[in-house]
This record gives sequence, C-alpha cells and structure tokens, in this order.
Amino acid sequence: MITIALDAMGGDHGVGVTVPAALQTLKHQPALKLILVGQREAVETELRRHHAAASDQFTVHHASEIVGMDEPPAQALRNKKDSSMRVAINLVKEGAAQAAVSAGNTGALMATGRFVLKTLPGIDRPAIITTLPTMHDHVHVLDLGANVDCTPEQLLQFAIMGSILVSALEGKTRPRVGLLNVGEEDIKGNEIVKKTHELLRSSCLNYAGFVEGDEIYTGDLDVIVCDGFVGNIMLKTSEGLARMITHFIKQEFKRNLLTKLSALVALPVLHAFKKRVDPRRYNGATFIGLNGTVIKSHGGADAFAFEHAILEALAEVKNNVPERIGRELAAMAEKGVVA
Amino acid sequence: MITIALDAMGGDHGVGVTVPAALQTLKHQPALKLILVGQREAVETELRRHHAAASDQFTVHHASEIVGMDEPPAQALRNKKDSSMRVAINLVKEGAAQAAVSAGNTGALMATGRFVLKTLPGIDRPAIITTLPTMHDHVHVLDLGANVDCTPEQLLQFAIMGSILVSALEGKTRPRVGLLNVGEEDIKGNEIVKKTHELLRSSCLNYAGFVEGDEIYTGDLDVIVCDGFVGNIMLKTSEGLARMITHFIKQEFKRNLLTKLSALVALPVLHAFKKRVDPRRYNGATFIGLNGTVIKSHGGADAFAFEHAILEALAEVKNNVPERIGRELAAMAEKGVVA
Repeated sequence: MITIALDAMGGDHGVGVTVPAALQTLKHQPALKLILVGQREAVETELRRHHAAASDQFTVHHASEIVGMDEPPAQALRNKKDSSMRVAINLVKEGAAQAAVSAGNTGALMATGRFVLKTLPGIDRPAIITTLPTMHDHVHVLDLGANVDCTPEQLLQFAIMGSILVSALEGKTRPRVGLLNVGEEDIKGNEIVKKTHELLRSSCLNYAGFVEGDEIYTGDLDVIVCDGFVGNIMLKTSEGLARMITHFIKQEFKRNLLTKLSALVALPVLHAFKKRVDPRRYNGATFIGLNGTVIKSHGGADAFAFEHAILEALAEVKNNVPERIGRELAAMAEKGVVA
Repeated sequence: MITIALDAMGGDHGVGVTVPAALQTLKHQPALKLILVGQREAVETELRRHHAAASDQFTVHHASEIVGMDEPPAQALRNKKDSSMRVAINLVKEGAAQAAVSAGNTGALMATGRFVLKTLPGIDRPAIITTLPTMHDHVHVLDLGANVDCTPEQLLQFAIMGSILVSALEGKTRPRVGLLNVGEEDIKGNEIVKKTHELLRSSCLNYAGFVEGDEIYTGDLDVIVCDGFVGNIMLKTSEGLARMITHFIKQEFKRNLLTKLSALVALPVLHAFKKRVDPRRYNGATFIGLNGTVIKSHGGADAFAFEHAILEALAEVKNNVPERIGRELAAMAEKGVVA
C-alpha cells in the first residue's frame, strides 16, 4: 500500500479539482491510499458533491491555512505552519505518506520541501524536473526554475539526478544526457556551461555533449540539463508558442462556412493531434534532490491533469526515486566522483 | 536609388538561392540595385541559368574566397580577406552599398561586421534582433546569440536600439519594451536581470517590466530584451517545437485512408495556417549596433526566405536605422542618460 498526501487546497481551483482528481485516480489504483489535506469542511463538502462514500482508500486530514498563489515563499514558510501544503509535506517527513502532491505556489512549495525534508546528502539544491513530449517519445528537462544561478557542480548534480530518475522510472541503464547550449562546438557558450561540459565529460554519465534548443523536441536524448533561468524561459516559451499555434489553427478553421465544414471533417484528426500534445498528460513536475517525493502540479491544472501529477508521484514512489538517488550519490561520493 | 551588397556564396545553398532571390526581389523593386558579391564564374553561370540579361539593377562583384559555415570566426577574419562576406561588408564601409545581406556563418559575419564597420558610439557590442510572429502581430527580440554574457548596461543598450528600430520601421512613437525573466515580481530573476530592470525603469523607454517566456507570443509587446544565451535557446526551442507540431499534424493526417481524405478537405485551411506561421516570412535578422546595416539570413533559407532578408535590409536602409540609433544615442549621451 502506497500513501500519497494531496494538498487539497492548492492551485487555481482548489478542492474543485483536487478532490475529483483524487477520486478518479483511486478508481484505477486499488493499492493506493490518498490523504486529502486541507480545510475539513471544504474538502468534505466537495466529497459529498461527488457522493464519495467513506473508504479506506482516502482520509481527510485537516489543515487550517492556505498559502496564496502569489504569497512570498519566505512569508508562507514563516507564518503558515498549518497550511495544507506544509501539512502534506510534514506527513511525508513523518512517514505517514510517501509523497506529497500540490498545485500550489511553486516557490512556497519548494521552500517548504527544502525546509521540512532537507536535500539529499551531496545535493546542494533541489531542482525541478519535468517530462516534455518529443518527436519520438519524451525527454526529461531540469532545472525548470528552482535555481536561477547554478554552479557547474550543481549542474553536474542535476545531470546525475536526472539520469537516475530516468533509469528508475524507465529501466534505461544508460540514459543519454545533454547540456543545453547555444552551439555544439566546445568553444561555444558561457563559462559556466563550458566548465559543466568538462565535468560531464569526465563523469560516469552517458554524456552526449552540448545540445541546442531545437534538439529538445527531436527525442534524441533522455535528459537535458540547464540552469533554472534558461529552463523556465524555455518551458514557458514552449507553452506560449503551442498556445499561439493552437489559436491560429482554430482561427483558420473558423474563418468561414467552408472552413467550418472542413473542420468537421478534420475533427477526428485534430482531436488525435490535440491529444498527442496535450500538456495535461505531462503535468506533474518533480522537486528532485529532496529526502522524499514532492510533485508540483500546474496551478491551472484540471482534474485530468492533476490525476497525472498523482500518477507521477505514484510511479516515483514505486520506483524508490529519492532512495536510489541517495544511494547512488553515496556510492559516487565513496569513489570520489562527486563531493 | 538604394544599393545592397549580397554575399552570393553564403548559406547552405550559395548562388542556387541568392541569385534567384536577387532576381525575384528586383522584379518588384525598381529603385533597388543589388551587387552580387562572389566568385564571378559561379554567379554568372547561375544568372545565365535564369536567363538574366545584364541590367543596371544588378552587378557582379568578384570575391575569390568563401567562408565555410563551420569555420571559426577569428580564422575567417584573419585568413579570408577576399571572401564574399568580407567584400560585401567592405562595400558598405566604402559607401558603395548601404547594406550587406548574407546567409553565411553567423559568427564570422558578426566578427567581420564589427571589424570592418565598428560599433556605433555608445554601443559596447552589437546584438542580433529579429521579428517573431505573435497572436496579434509580431514582436522584435534581441539578443539572439551574439553575446552569451551581457552586463545590465549592455542590455539597456539593446533595449534602446530595439526601441529605435521599431520606431523607425513601424512609426511607433513609444514601443513597449519588456525584459525576459522567470517571473513578473521585482524579486524574481538573477542579479543581472534585476539590475537591468532598475536601469530600464529609470530610462526614457516605454518599459513594461518583466515578461515571462509565454508572453513572447501574446503580442502585447514591441521589443523583448534578453541576453544572447537565453535568446538563442528561446529561438531554437521555438523552431524545434514548431517543427514537432507540424510533424505531428502531418502524421495524424497520414494515418489512414480516412484521415488522408480529410486532409484533402482541410488542405486550404492547413495551407492558410502554414502560411501564417511560415518562418521564411520572418527571415532576416539584423546585426544592430553597427555603423551600417548588416542582415543575416538563415543559412538554410530558400529563395523566398532570402528575398525577405533583402527586403528587411531595404526597409532598414530606407528608414535610416543605424543613423537614427547613432543620432538618438548621441542625444542621450549629451543628456547623460547613457554613457
């Protein structure tokens, strides 16, 4: 039995999304238990709305406070000790749950995760890693915004963690790791990237060298490493561009009666396409490098997307991701590979 | 009469693209003269292939060497003094042409442009600026890769140059300028971005504050500023994602006989969509900050795309972009606004 604590109040829609997502997930996961953490009355009202009968698959755990989506992380950490986010992470710390999932304030969730769970030995700072679709399959990219400035040593740690995560989740023995840069030649890039390139080359990882932005989506790599500044801009640019392209396709099909009719004909194809790039299927970013599993859902996630974030948490717990990272880092430290 | 020097040998396809593009452009631009710079025999053979009669609208200017697409810029600058790229830029320096257009090696073109033309007074380093489509119209983004590390003062210079370029080309008196960052709050981002934010706030520009990656494509801004490392990754990520989405759409329409038939019906709409996001229509990046106009075409550009790069050069010459930047910077320096 695996237990996951959900921050039921987090995200743009709170219980309106987290509760139905939880109930939906449980339908297909008989060996999963969920703890819905949040204001008891709000959670129970929503459960009643879905006619959810008491079950040994879920419990409600009261937490009186909510962290605002725009609340400064330090303030949330200091003043909201009984927030749904904090209590969900506390449950992981205490061993009452094996993972926490939240759609709440990213900065506050990261600060709380670091404060409560601490980073793994050998890891300076946790990173945010997520999956993106590619031409052939998908790729894992980190960091997506936890660390705006990174040292080469930290980027090496990210590469190691990303590589272990892919091994654990997908059974690949030697995941291909690339370093995001502005060119593929050794002389390209800033000093940090060049230094990291050297560290990765002499590491035990299956390092494929520098990759440029357009190689993110080709599917030739398993893990792509960058600092959180670049990673966040890359991710959000991709979201914005995908939105614009979808908008243009819709506009063109809505242009006149004839195009509207052709839209009807093309509908099944357009749906198949939409499903394929549906960002909801990739929802759920991991705060990697913590002593425990914390998954961040997109704040605007709907129940379908939030369910995917829960399933990501489940997969990582089943495959002991943090334990494997801790163990392999310890082994590397013994060999003198990392500090 | 405006004269533009074309590096006829540059790019992946050389004269096979540059010569037909030149001939096509001249058809619609009676007041334009083009100098085709390159190996005379290759250029003239291609001209004959297109049955181009001698005309006072174009001349061939011999240059014996070609800079390789992967040649180190410093080496090209030192050893290839009679390259088509170098000679085209020399013609601008001498006043025989008002702009140079090349699809050649970006680094070598930038190094040559800086060496021959020098930067404008008050500008530390030139930047690469281009136009990207947005939901509503388009946006100008810089730097796209000339400078991997930038100081806040350089980023301010980029903002000023981008703003003047938009004013000059589009007649906007107060272009809206944004600074690319990982969040919109003052506390977000790295030290360089925070310092630049302060400089922009106290500048005379119409500064709209921090913008995130997904705001590039909304069309709410005229100019977006970032360093060349982030800009290059952002641009290439966008290219890669657009390619993947196009690939998926094609795949879905090719799946079976039924989807192939619906593709036939949807063809006019798909063409309209494709035309709208056609990157060839946005081909032609400007090396802004030089004493003269140098336009870089995509190396893989076809004749249609290369024609757009020539037209970009023409528009900038017509609107005296470098002169206006020089003049306004001098005025700002006098007022003590910039160094």
